[in-house]
Amino acid sequence: MEWNLKEIDTYAKKWIREAGDHIRASFSKTLNVTSKSNPNDLVTDLDKATEQFFIKKIKETYPDHKIIGEEGYGDNVTDLTGTVWIIDPIDGTMNFVHQQRNFAISIGIYFDGEGLIGLIYDVVHDELYHCIKGNGVYLNEKPIPKLTEAKISEAIIALNATWVAPNKRIDHQLLLPLVKDVRGTRSYGSAAMEMVYVATGRIDAYITPRLAPWDIAAGIIMIKELGGKATNLRGEEVDILKQNSLFAAKPGLHGYILRNYLKDGKW
Amino acid sequence: MEWNLKEIDTYAKKWIREAGDHIRASFSKTLNVTSKSNPNDLVTDLDKATEQFFIKKIKETYPDHKIIGEEGYGDNVTDLTGTVWIIDPIDGTMNFVHQQRNFAISIGIYFDGEGLIGLIYDVVHDELYHCIKGNGVYLNEKPIPKLTEAKISEAIIALNATWVAPNKRIDHQLLLPLVKDVRGTRSYGSAAMEMVYVATGRIDAYITPRLAPWDIAAGIIMIKELGGKATNLRGEEVDILKQNSLFAAKPGLHGYILRNYLKDGKW
Repeated sequence: MEWNLKEIDTYAKKWIREAGDHIRASFSKTLNVTSKSNPNDLVTDLDKATEQFFIKKIKETYPDHKIIGEEGYGDNVTDLTGTVWIIDPIDGTMNFVHQQRNFAISIGIYFDGEGLIGLIYDVVHDELYHCIKGNGVYLNEKPIPKLTEAKISEAIIALNATWVAPNKRIDHQLLLPLVKDVRGTRSYGSAAMEMVYVATGRIDAYITPRLAPWDIAAGIIMIKELGGKATNLRGEEVDILKQNSLFAAKPGLHGYILRNYLKDGKW
Repeated sequence: MEWNLKEIDTYAKKWIREAGDHIRASFSKTLNVTSKSNPNDLVTDLDKATEQFFIKKIKETYPDHKIIGEEGYGDNVTDLTGTVWIIDPIDGTMNFVHQQRNFAISIGIYFDGEGLIGLIYDVVHDELYHCIKGNGVYLNEKPIPKLTEAKISEAIIALNATWVAPNKRIDHQLLLPLVKDVRGTRSYGSAAMEMVYVATGRIDAYITPRLAPWDIAAGIIMIKELGGKATNLRGEEVDILKQNSLFAAKPGLHGYILRNYLKDGKW
């Protein structure tokens, strides 16, 4: 298992960098943007092609591995037995379309339900965040330090203005005191990047009411590996096969916000 | 004047890159010392040293030019006659401390009150945004296209969650319908970078209730040069010597938001 894990990891890193090369090379071409079910869900041919690239590589090398992909070209996975790759070929598609930055490729690899390998690749800046559980998290092979505690009054949290205005997903009243008490808020528009920001300590917490498995599969592994907490907004373990709310934070701060603002999830 | 403008511009670009080199070189040192002393102090030192570097260079080369700097080492400028440099040595100090990214050096150069040269340098990514009025805006010498119109339903706006919660600076109720109607919101925590994001079309608008002259002096020149609008939240010209609210947006969208959400400033 140990040997196999390293082999899988080596392939994953190779493929994610290859996919990144392809995405960077495409920037000069006009993007063919089509719309999925709603206008917030822009998708490009590149999203689809990138996912298909990963699926081809994985299936050729590991025919028994299962794949969950945002674009739907993977398998119909109903349980996490065996090895499951959870892939977002372009996390932050809206940023990709409007900015050609602030997006990432995200890959989490689960073995019988346990997240053991996480990769998030900030393609534009050629920054690969990478983790094998128990071996630390690395940015381009340089180790990222463990997370330390933070005070609420000095905390910068990733929280989108949408959730502070009345909305259908979360009681925005809960968040108003939090916004007032922290040092500042940010919002980058890519869950994978926002989780990397928590893992690296660039922000102290990240709160969002609904994410899909491919948005969080890699980031959760990294944040936990560095001593942070990543749960749903009720403080419970997320079910990686379903839609989840997400609340990721530094140790200490996670419990503090949960108790004092999110009322231990009793809302 | 034309010749002199190009000379001033050449020096400004040279100095801003030199200052950036110095900031980048300080990263390893800053990070190492962080654990021993207050990171805010270190940054203050770097802020001050960078501003003093610019002041020394400007005064040596152009003794009659006036300087307004965030750190207060400039002149006591009460009017905009002559040539005035408006400098923020590190815009986004909180990001600098927490992230070592998402900050910029900002320099606007005004001639008898007219903004003619703007420079914003994203130090970490070595991206220099640069403008001489009438000659376009460039990212590392590559021209940035003119801004085009955008629909509200497809707009991404920079708007911090702080302003959508009850606060002392702006009636947050005004912003709630706007948050609902746009495609998405972002917040990066550096006014200079957020103005560059408007200038490059990566976001469609930027709304914030209070900024200082050095936060906006360069960005306003760039946004206007590319056909965008940059006013206060009432749609009026900003007074570059004072604190201002800021509302920058693509052409068309600026008037639309002003009329339909900001009530033509009649609030």
